[in-house]
Amino acid sequence: MRLSRYFLPVLKETPREAQIVSHRYMLQAGMIRQSSAGIYSWLPLGFKVLKRLEQIVHEEQQRVGHLPMLMPTIQSGDLWKQSGRHNSYGPEMLRFHDRHGREMLYGPTNEEMITEIVAAYVKSYRDLPLTLYHIQWKFRDERRPRFGVMRGREFYMKDGYNFDLSKEAALHAYNRHLVSYLRTYERMGLQAIPMRADSGPIGGDYTHEFLVLADTGESEVFYDSAITDLTFGDRAVDVDDYTACQAVMDEFTSRYARTDETHDEALFNEVPEDRRRSARGIEVGQIFYFGTEYSEKMGAIVQNEDGKQVPLHMGSHGIGVSRLVGAIIEASHDDKGIIWPEGVTPFHCGIVNLKQGDEAADAECDKLYDSLSALGLEPLYDDRDERAGAKFGTMDMIGLPWRITVGPRGLKNGVVELTSRRTGESEELPPEQAVARIAEIYQGVA
Amino acid sequence: MRLSRYFLPVLKETPREAQIVSHRYMLQAGMIRQSSAGIYSWLPLGFKVLKRLEQIVHEEQQRVGHLPMLMPTIQSGDLWKQSGRHNSYGPEMLRFHDRHGREMLYGPTNEEMITEIVAAYVKSYRDLPLTLYHIQWKFRDERRPRFGVMRGREFYMKDGYNFDLSKEAALHAYNRHLVSYLRTYERMGLQAIPMRADSGPIGGDYTHEFLVLADTGESEVFYDSAITDLTFGDRAVDVDDYTACQAVMDEFTSRYARTDETHDEALFNEVPEDRRRSARGIEVGQIFYFGTEYSEKMGAIVQNEDGKQVPLHMGSHGIGVSRLVGAIIEASHDDKGIIWPEGVTPFHCGIVNLKQGDEAADAECDKLYDSLSALGLEPLYDDRDERAGAKFGTMDMIGLPWRITVGPRGLKNGVVELTSRRTGESEELPPEQAVARIAEIYQGVA
Repeated sequence: MRLSRYFLPVLKETPREAQIVSHRYMLQAGMIRQSSAGIYSWLPLGFKVLKRLEQIVHEEQQRVGHLPMLMPTIQSGDLWKQSGRHNSYGPEMLRFHDRHGREMLYGPTNEEMITEIVAAYVKSYRDLPLTLYHIQWKFRDERRPRFGVMRGREFYMKDGYNFDLSKEAALHAYNRHLVSYLRTYERMGLQAIPMRADSGPIGGDYTHEFLVLADTGESEVFYDSAITDLTFGDRAVDVDDYTACQAVMDEFTSRYARTDETHDEALFNEVPEDRRRSARGIEVGQIFYFGTEYSEKMGAIVQNEDGKQVPLHMGSHGIGVSRLVGAIIEASHDDKGIIWPEGVTPFHCGIVNLKQGDEAADAECDKLYDSLSALGLEPLYDDRDERAGAKFGTMDMIGLPWRITVGPRGLKNGVVELTSRRTGESEELPPEQAVARIAEIYQGVA
Repeated sequence: MRLSRYFLPVLKETPREAQIVSHRYMLQAGMIRQSSAGIYSWLPLGFKVLKRLEQIVHEEQQRVGHLPMLMPTIQSGDLWKQSGRHNSYGPEMLRFHDRHGREMLYGPTNEEMITEIVAAYVKSYRDLPLTLYHIQWKFRDERRPRFGVMRGREFYMKDGYNFDLSKEAALHAYNRHLVSYLRTYERMGLQAIPMRADSGPIGGDYTHEFLVLADTGESEVFYDSAITDLTFGDRAVDVDDYTACQAVMDEFTSRYARTDETHDEALFNEVPEDRRRSARGIEVGQIFYFGTEYSEKMGAIVQNEDGKQVPLHMGSHGIGVSRLVGAIIEASHDDKGIIWPEGVTPFHCGIVNLKQGDEAADAECDKLYDSLSALGLEPLYDDRDERAGAKFGTMDMIGLPWRITVGPRGLKNGVVELTSRRTGESEELPPEQAVARIAEIYQGVA
């Protein structure tokens, strides 16, 4: 993309309404614009990151066999009366009447709707196991929306639901989700720690939250520092293998890690003192197993191998996709702006032309642009007639991990400059080598 | 995808509520499930087609330089008071109050919101031309929703907005949209004819609707049959070239083609009698140029080259993405089910194993599956232990354009059967040749 043809309204002033860095930088970098309290438009740069995260979530869900679908945003109130949550769900649920006076609501979550669908079609153990998910806009009418997309009212979420014949099979689905989530977050450049959580209004005995450590996190967390040494990496886990998935669950949850809601001081004190940590964390996902509660209420009953009618064992599993954009920025930025991890960056690298209009510099930038594009990479070329300082400032704010700087002086020596946004380190090298280096960096990232 | 692991609830009975074939087949093929009147869940097969159409729209929009973004579904009533449409928009607009009593609505369209955004950031002619678009769920509270996704209440739509300095530039954007839409529909296997339309509540002098001819269409249309000979094909049109885009507009709109709303009997009678046609059509898109109306009301004013403050010239342009799923089925089906055009099919081909459990047949199916997948194609393998008739019935209903049938008898002679869903014609050939043929068919389609 050439910046002269893009819509990237980078703000010079610091937005006063933003209390945390991700909110401030998303506004300054021209990623979002607030349209009402807690409701945002995603401008092209922000939308690109959001789509990238959505893509990673889709890929990792489908890698473990979960099936994508899409439920509508608007639900009927009747559906929620069947589960009993129409009354119990608080004022966060946006309720209204349609033109015929029917009670409707903007879905804050989809347990009722998905269970009704599965109840309608799934009649036999032969149709199981089944995990369906969707990535859809949700609405929660927060009393005090704040922190930008981190606690908005309209937000984008992946929610998935497993349907299994037995508790054992459903707990395997629970473990499989943990495996898949660990990989998902790592691809986004995040360390998200599974922590034992409180089950809240959804109910159930088993639940873990995934928390990213960040000073601005809404939760206080307590953990054994040994847990931060764990990485999922490139493991090939057979997701049909109960034992293999259980082993990953055990490895990542056997050390102490809890939010303040479930924190147990006595247990925490059993952690060696030099490994006890307390910090702030941002919740970016949660998994639940809640048994047969919804399937009994909504009639999700199947015939088992013995010909008996049994209710399905269920769980639900969420990843906050729009919130993750903020969480990644909270975890990865400096005082100049955002620093995107390679896995989620909106453009693979920036090209800065130090002297727009200089024949050699223009030609070299065009050539770099074409070479990178031919390799399937997407550069953002700042081809505006602006001072170098303004161009660098824009690139630093929007946080592309790599920048190639092209100027007449370097070109006389046959070199351009390749700069890492994270370290700030620069290296002079011939243009084709810069392209090769960037290609190498992104090998295996997409 | 192996059918044993998929969620494809094909119905045996004909759904009684469906009045038109696309609605009936989408229900029968397990593509959608109604959750309330005019509101649908997209089951995995339906979701896959919807995403495919969305992908084509994104690619074709970006090919001509339009920038993707995303506006929220919920809008503030205040925004619509600025344009004066809060009162004039009828009961189709779903209105409600949030927990603080503020007037909100579920967006039926986005002229106000996008103009507010552009007004906030675009101050100079140097930032133009600019066309932003999004693909987002909309809600229109139809009094009598029907015809499935063809006239639903919650629907998925691409709406794009151009902002230009002059009427001339905005009319070029109008022409460019026509060019891009022609290509978009053809990639979906549709002939969508641009017809002069009525501008309705959005206002403006210039507007064309795109109509697909189908007996179940809601509009009566009148046209010169010569127009159906036109195809856009593989032309490389320079979309920055005003003259080139105008030539395409002229070519595709110079012959008589109007909906009943703008039909002019006298003009129609000038068409040679043997070329006069009247038929039914389904509207799948519309383009508008409406001048400075919204930019004046919402303050989208820029400084022009002479330093003067001038309001922007705008247009808006829509493609009904969810409705297109129905329109394609209306245009492409037979009495056994759907027939997907190659450009939008949810799976590239089906594999039917005539004798599940037969060692040779199972092995050959696995091999075909792997060979096709390795080529980047996505087969749907019916690996269920079902009768051949049931497997063929499912494949015919869901409408994959190609099917490979594998059975022990054919394998003894070293052949499988390749069948076209459209013609019903079959050919016996060695498995590797069947794979090569399918690869050839899809060359250049994706």
